[in-house]
Amino acid sequence: MQRPNTATLSGFMDLTPEYQAAFDKIKQTIANVHSAYGFSSIDTPLIYRKEILLAKAGGDTEKQIYEMTRGETDLALRFDQTVPLAVYVANKQSELAFPFKVSQIGKVYRGERSQKGRFREFYQCDADVIGRGELPIAYDAEVIAILNDIFTELDLGKFTIRIANRKLLLGFLESLDLTDGQRVATTSAIDHAEKISGDEFKEMLREIGLDEERILRVFEFIELDGTNADILRNLTVMNITNDDFKQGLRELREVTDLLAAYDNVKIDLMIVRGLDYYTGTVFETILDKHPEIGSVGSGGRYDNLCDNYTSEKFQGVGGSVGLSRLFYVLTEIGLVKPSVKTSAEILVIPFGESQIGAANLLANKLRGEGKRVMVLYDGWKIGKKMEFANKIAVPFVAVIGENEVTSGRYGLKNMVTGEEVQEVL
Amino acid sequence: MQRPNTATLSGFMDLTPEYQAAFDKIKQTIANVHSAYGFSSIDTPLIYRKEILLAKAGGDTEKQIYEMTRGETDLALRFDQTVPLAVYVANKQSELAFPFKVSQIGKVYRGERSQKGRFREFYQCDADVIGRGELPIAYDAEVIAILNDIFTELDLGKFTIRIANRKLLLGFLESLDLTDGQRVATTSAIDHAEKISGDEFKEMLREIGLDEERILRVFEFIELDGTNADILRNLTVMNITNDDFKQGLRELREVTDLLAAYDNVKIDLMIVRGLDYYTGTVFETILDKHPEIGSVGSGGRYDNLCDNYTSEKFQGVGGSVGLSRLFYVLTEIGLVKPSVKTSAEILVIPFGESQIGAANLLANKLRGEGKRVMVLYDGWKIGKKMEFANKIAVPFVAVIGENEVTSGRYGLKNMVTGEEVQEVL
Repeated sequence: MQRPNTATLSGFMDLTPEYQAAFDKIKQTIANVHSAYGFSSIDTPLIYRKEILLAKAGGDTEKQIYEMTRGETDLALRFDQTVPLAVYVANKQSELAFPFKVSQIGKVYRGERSQKGRFREFYQCDADVIGRGELPIAYDAEVIAILNDIFTELDLGKFTIRIANRKLLLGFLESLDLTDGQRVATTSAIDHAEKISGDEFKEMLREIGLDEERILRVFEFIELDGTNADILRNLTVMNITNDDFKQGLRELREVTDLLAAYDNVKIDLMIVRGLDYYTGTVFETILDKHPEIGSVGSGGRYDNLCDNYTSEKFQGVGGSVGLSRLFYVLTEIGLVKPSVKTSAEILVIPFGESQIGAANLLANKLRGEGKRVMVLYDGWKIGKKMEFANKIAVPFVAVIGENEVTSGRYGLKNMVTGEEVQEVL
Repeated sequence: MQRPNTATLSGFMDLTPEYQAAFDKIKQTIANVHSAYGFSSIDTPLIYRKEILLAKAGGDTEKQIYEMTRGETDLALRFDQTVPLAVYVANKQSELAFPFKVSQIGKVYRGERSQKGRFREFYQCDADVIGRGELPIAYDAEVIAILNDIFTELDLGKFTIRIANRKLLLGFLESLDLTDGQRVATTSAIDHAEKISGDEFKEMLREIGLDEERILRVFEFIELDGTNADILRNLTVMNITNDDFKQGLRELREVTDLLAAYDNVKIDLMIVRGLDYYTGTVFETILDKHPEIGSVGSGGRYDNLCDNYTSEKFQGVGGSVGLSRLFYVLTEIGLVKPSVKTSAEILVIPFGESQIGAANLLANKLRGEGKRVMVLYDGWKIGKKMEFANKIAVPFVAVIGENEVTSGRYGLKNMVTGEEVQEVL
């Protein structure tokens, strides 16, 4: 018989139990932080009408979505959780209380060109606050504080949250008297500036049509350095008077003021976070010792969340962790180790078939005390049973034989130290 | 602008936060029981090569799968978690310890004809034990005990786990000297017998070609009643001597013996659980007061798990809860009520903008004590803020104004009783 190729599809993650346990622990940590901030969990569908997913998205997304057809309807898998959230809010606006604080931890799909560390099926862990008609800047600070708590809890070493503001950038570029096209191209160039040399970046700006003076000013802007207070002061003395710049500066000051207690939140005006969605605050998170892996948690403010789906105005701000990629790189650089091979704390082994009943009773008693207990029913010799215990690296083992049943006592063996404690059956 | 149709696709579930919280609670209860039995969690991909998904499946499944193409590869969404598990075991056999006890809680997809209470995207919650080359019947009893624990924990009233054995049925039908085709057709007829009248069932058997005597014997078999001991005794005195019957009877006796402590586990020889997969023990769970909703948890033994994917022999036995459908019917019959509107236990309200810092400090202090705390940053009048607190039905509210900051004390108001307790800021 010809067997089908069962190899895991490229770009898909299929972890062994011990790595899955490590993955789930990170996922649970993120969920716990969302919940600690009172964010409600929702679980949106993975499939939508194609027209919904593409209402805003442009070229690359269209190429990357997984499409299918069911009956007359063109469907596709979601490529992020922001569109599903926008649809959710548009559909359920009358049933929700705003500001709506919401946590989404789920899988999304992008048929990207396959390469190491890039996933086609991956988890996003999003915390968003949605306002109806209004949403104070304090919520921008809140979603950043959530990211800060997540990476503190994950204990991956020092990290920096780099923060900027799209209105500020827009206002700055307006002050340079660029055309609309030049502004968009320059924004995109800044978004890529970190990946190229200074000379290449200059060359890009020249090609966009900026003269040397404007190029110099762009450099000065994105390279503003020092404390947050220094940067805010330097921005103020630039004396740029257009509304976007002033509004962006106000927002950036307010967010950084609210986050003054977090000394790892740094203004960095190179942060753009792509051309889609964001309209105000933008941020990303870098592990200080591993800048090479790029941002591990990012997000920003988007003021037109539901515009494609309803006439009501909704504003949002959200922070997201790309969990699958994060897990992959943490494993690669050794910051995540495989976890336990079994969730069981105790393995109960009936010595023979006639002790299965007693073993089950003991297992149920221990479960009633909140323990996680596995029972091994295989009729193997005791040596092979202990081999299994070692293979799954279970912390404690209890063998229940005739003597144990008669005496009503059993030994609970610590598999690390070898110590055995007598317990009542 | 023409807006796309955002209505949730038919057959997809998109719950408001308070129903989502109730759903998640059930999901967590199931996960906790799996974990209490030491089952490891895995999280398999949702997309597979089409040839993998269809290696075993037949007509209906092929029509129902969601297919897509990426590059040269025909892909489809998984329609259950058994095929993904079989692939997982085949791929990772050298990295796993057997018996492999595994929990899968995830979404699956079937493009069924849309009707009330039938889902196209739905959760399955599976606990399976996989053996390599051998798997004692005690594991059949274990996965049934897990289902029993789940429905006990869910506290949905009395329930009955109905249990049968496919080898026993096969052996019984062999004893009637039927052709292979008649055996398969009769098995299928028994699988549907509960949904039709006795006369209709008889007519089906006649059409299959059974004579009146054989029809009578089929009736006698599936209607065996009384205690489990009664039924086992009646089966024994039938004196059917083929191997399948004897083996099936041994297995059924062993499983029910191991589950003797559970008086809600009843032998019921009408249970078939479809024509695919199962080769031994089969079972389903009925809520005693709501038999009309059908089985809420079912499963069985399948002895050829990975045959389509590897030459190594693997046996499995698993129990599954179809969570989405269960949740839907429990909501319909009033057994599940919407849960809390917010996960927050305490809402902290800064009275004015200048108290945001103090409110954040308090919120973080309370979070440090393990509390789930939401902060409301909107610059509304206090009346509107309290309206929001009532709307989300948060249990406790703390308003932080100038007085609170000055005195270092604040009132924690119980929103149900109206009581207010003074606490230190």
